[in-house]
Amino acid sequence: MKFSKYYCPTLKEDPQDAEVISHKLLIRAGMIRKLTSGIYTFLPMGLRVLRKISDIVREEMDKAGCLEIMMPVVQPAELWQESKRWDYYGKELLRFKDRHERDFCLGPTHEEVVTDIVRHEVRSYRQLPLNLYQIHTKFRDEIRPRFGLMRCREFIMKDGYSFDRDDRGAEESYKKMYNAYSKIFERMGLRFRAVEADTGQIGGSLSHEFMVLAETGEDTIVVCQNCDFASNIEKAKVVLKEKSNDRKTQENSLKLEKIYTPDKHTVEDVANFLNVSKNDIVKTLIYIINNEPVAFVIPGDRDLNEAKVKSFLKVPEIRMASPDEVYNISGCEVGYAGPIGLKVKKIYVDALLEGKKGLICGANEKDYHLKNLDINEHIKDAVFLDLVNIKQSDPCPVCGGELKFLKGIEVGHVFKLGTKYSEAMNATYIDADGKEKYMVMGCYGIGVSRIIAAAIEQNYDKNGIIFPPSIAPFEVCIASLDVKDDRVMKVSKDLYDTLIKLNIDVIWDERDLRPGFKFKDADLIGFPIHIYVGKKGLANGYIEVKDRKDGKVYQISHDKFITQFKEIRNRIWESWGIPLNIKAG
Amino acid sequence: MKFSKYYCPTLKEDPQDAEVISHKLLIRAGMIRKLTSGIYTFLPMGLRVLRKISDIVREEMDKAGCLEIMMPVVQPAELWQESKRWDYYGKELLRFKDRHERDFCLGPTHEEVVTDIVRHEVRSYRQLPLNLYQIHTKFRDEIRPRFGLMRCREFIMKDGYSFDRDDRGAEESYKKMYNAYSKIFERMGLRFRAVEADTGQIGGSLSHEFMVLAETGEDTIVVCQNCDFASNIEKAKVVLKEKSNDRKTQENSLKLEKIYTPDKHTVEDVANFLNVSKNDIVKTLIYIINNEPVAFVIPGDRDLNEAKVKSFLKVPEIRMASPDEVYNISGCEVGYAGPIGLKVKKIYVDALLEGKKGLICGANEKDYHLKNLDINEHIKDAVFLDLVNIKQSDPCPVCGGELKFLKGIEVGHVFKLGTKYSEAMNATYIDADGKEKYMVMGCYGIGVSRIIAAAIEQNYDKNGIIFPPSIAPFEVCIASLDVKDDRVMKVSKDLYDTLIKLNIDVIWDERDLRPGFKFKDADLIGFPIHIYVGKKGLANGYIEVKDRKDGKVYQISHDKFITQFKEIRNRIWESWGIPLNIKAG
Repeated sequence: MKFSKYYCPTLKEDPQDAEVISHKLLIRAGMIRKLTSGIYTFLPMGLRVLRKISDIVREEMDKAGCLEIMMPVVQPAELWQESKRWDYYGKELLRFKDRHERDFCLGPTHEEVVTDIVRHEVRSYRQLPLNLYQIHTKFRDEIRPRFGLMRCREFIMKDGYSFDRDDRGAEESYKKMYNAYSKIFERMGLRFRAVEADTGQIGGSLSHEFMVLAETGEDTIVVCQNCDFASNIEKAKVVLKEKSNDRKTQENSLKLEKIYTPDKHTVEDVANFLNVSKNDIVKTLIYIINNEPVAFVIPGDRDLNEAKVKSFLKVPEIRMASPDEVYNISGCEVGYAGPIGLKVKKIYVDALLEGKKGLICGANEKDYHLKNLDINEHIKDAVFLDLVNIKQSDPCPVCGGELKFLKGIEVGHVFKLGTKYSEAMNATYIDADGKEKYMVMGCYGIGVSRIIAAAIEQNYDKNGIIFPPSIAPFEVCIASLDVKDDRVMKVSKDLYDTLIKLNIDVIWDERDLRPGFKFKDADLIGFPIHIYVGKKGLANGYIEVKDRKDGKVYQISHDKFITQFKEIRNRIWESWGIPLNIKAG
Repeated sequence: MKFSKYYCPTLKEDPQDAEVISHKLLIRAGMIRKLTSGIYTFLPMGLRVLRKISDIVREEMDKAGCLEIMMPVVQPAELWQESKRWDYYGKELLRFKDRHERDFCLGPTHEEVVTDIVRHEVRSYRQLPLNLYQIHTKFRDEIRPRFGLMRCREFIMKDGYSFDRDDRGAEESYKKMYNAYSKIFERMGLRFRAVEADTGQIGGSLSHEFMVLAETGEDTIVVCQNCDFASNIEKAKVVLKEKSNDRKTQENSLKLEKIYTPDKHTVEDVANFLNVSKNDIVKTLIYIINNEPVAFVIPGDRDLNEAKVKSFLKVPEIRMASPDEVYNISGCEVGYAGPIGLKVKKIYVDALLEGKKGLICGANEKDYHLKNLDINEHIKDAVFLDLVNIKQSDPCPVCGGELKFLKGIEVGHVFKLGTKYSEAMNATYIDADGKEKYMVMGCYGIGVSRIIAAAIEQNYDKNGIIFPPSIAPFEVCIASLDVKDDRVMKVSKDLYDTLIKLNIDVIWDERDLRPGFKFKDADLIGFPIHIYVGKKGLANGYIEVKDRKDGKVYQISHDKFITQFKEIRNRIWESWGIPLNIKAG
């Protein structure tokens, strides 16, 4: 491709509405353009990256024995009603009516559609296992789309679905996909971790997220320094260090006693005022769930983990009560709610508090708290659950070892669904024993367009994007530094033709522009390898090659160029940890 | 690909809801499955065909210097309001609101979006011409989706848009696309014609449709036997053979006279009753357009061409008046309407009738007609337009030669848009003379998923589909006829491996099934070349090769197989008229 014939409108300035680096760079590098909130057009350069990512995904899926199909974007309500998700799924499911007033939605995921296909076609165990996938457009009506390709409304996803005879088969399919996903992200040159994850609106019994590690990641990952444990913070179970020795479980139960805490609304204020530690206090949080008030009682030094709440209660959405609602429920303003005498439907207590005594809580009366709270004695019908976020100082829930927190961007997610959808939609087969059984399902997603953003969040510098060579729009950019010079143009053209023959993906910047401009564009767009052909270099017998990642520039003798270029190229691929045998070159 | 690992659920019976052959065969061959009315899933075999078609389109677009982008499926109302199509476009434009109650639609076409992109990026004439295309999902909420992939609601289209400095540039872009389209359909092995066409809801000044010729086609094509004239019947202008000599223009004008025509509702009845020819009578058709009644007066032996009406009046939808409305407007029941005294906003008269006298028309009174109608004299404010369908007996509007009617399926459409969208949306650039000018646009569509149906309508027999080799899901099917026989399986496997090495797209039917079953599936799915490896053949030293199209079976000596197979293969490609140098093989 010649740069002058290409359409890549690069910009000098950051776009005003871009908050994260990948969003800024994708716009500046002329890869995407916003159509409206959370909806983007891919320009030629961006589409090439998307295509390369899709191709890697497709190759690994096919190698793993999956079969590609293409399901519709527009889905009829009936299927979602059958699975009960029409009501369960929140407002992210964009619903509408067609000209005949029939209900439809834009597919945010395709469990219903694929299960509908398979239940009509598969009759016998001989047709199983079956693993179908697609790479296609999805839509989620995010309440606040942001961060460019990171959290869009319309996006490209690879979603795959496995159908097995039994749990053992489903387990194997899951492992196969887990391994294929690891391979995929390795081939893309990304540093990532697979972590245990919450199953969210998809459901199922087990799931792992594939996280690209980046400081700007929205997700927090908890990894153990001692064992293999790695989990999304949303999912990580909290266990106590030495529960049995805990002072607060040994004390005698005393009578509740009201104490005056004027103007002390927060745990911190109360702790300072009473000169106690924050975990001598409990927080009582009032939420509205399914239109009813419920309370969560957690240690004063912890945060409620909403993902755990949604998962345990199997609800798609929860929200904190408003100040007015708090007033109606607790009888006083925000800051003094406590579990005693609260008008709520249910009180959930964090498991860390089970059996504890001598705690301080709100008195449901302005300027007052209660002391001597005995959780098990005083809170009637308390339900104990793991409700809070793990802290880096907590022990590993598996081995008790030390934990470390990392930041990550979710780019893949595998779920063991079990029979959730096959039971709801009656997807059965006749087994070898002649009995009708439910198929056991798994589902597997990769955020294809999101990977572009994640790759950039992980790989950039002040000059622009640094693309891994396997997913760069072009692997090599040849910049002719003196376009008026015949020799420069001839050498450039020869090089360009040679690289094309070697099946190397190359763009030739032959635009009539100053060299500085070309350096800047090549850096900004993030081509992994730059070749500079200039008058001065040729006069001295060399051509320059730059590794975009480490910035090193190699002066290579013109007459030995191709051999030495190949060596440098190999080293660059290796430095990204991308298996060289994958890319022919 | 091994057949046993593939997912291709073939059916013995035709699906009940399928009306046309391509729909029946696509379902029976396990290529597509209906999700809901007009919305289909592509199963693996169908997706392969779609992919091959897309690849050919993409290659030819890229060769023609077009650049691929990907625009969103979901589009904001604002852009459509700017172009005025939000109101103009009919109910096929599926409109909905997002969670924030903002208006959106599902894109049936992308003129607005692409113009919006280009107007923000292109400033100077140096950036022109520009030709952007995509291959992506589109949605049109058809009132009556039918015929499988022929008239879906959700479908895959290639749509491209050119931007030029001036008319001459736009002309060149148009020609380039016209030629690329011809190349594309040639490479697909389809018999087609490019014809003049109506510009419909897209607009513009000139357009051609690419029609795949098939008896089952919904469109009628008019071609001249003498000159190059070829047109969709919707567009073909009607001219008289010898207008000046026409009897009806020579007569004297007489006074209108009421005649009794009891129970004669139709032109045919009246002609027989009065013993005149049908074209001595005029038909008066009452329509409702933009909520107002209008009348069309046309020769009694002609049919109104609604496409011409919509095009001349620039309205997206028109409908015939209901019997009740006819009663209100004409003062009597259906069958006696005439132009004299009709309560309509406007009367349009077919140009063939201009200057004619002595005609018969309805009297707007039950059981009566009028005679001596003098069109120019009696119909006040008549607007003369070309309103009717051309007939095969009419002269060619260009050279007067003889016409022929053909049936076709529209698979491509090119439009010269001019400045329709650039003016409405203010897409300008600064020309070399420093002046701000509107870009001149063209747009170009190919019905990628529809081509599958069109190819089948043109190429099938009683046993199933006959795919052209360039777009077949697999070019070759090796069927092992005796799977229990080690030699058969070894030879099959070797052949399979060899063809893969030759880069030939092959599926190996190694399923444990009777040969008859395999023959039937291979015929039904329409693989162009079948290879049969059987015990009996091998014992006699041969392997069989079948050309799906002509049914010929070649017995090829096992030891010279590859050489002779290549020759047969070349002949088969040639027989489809597909340039061999395109397909490496």
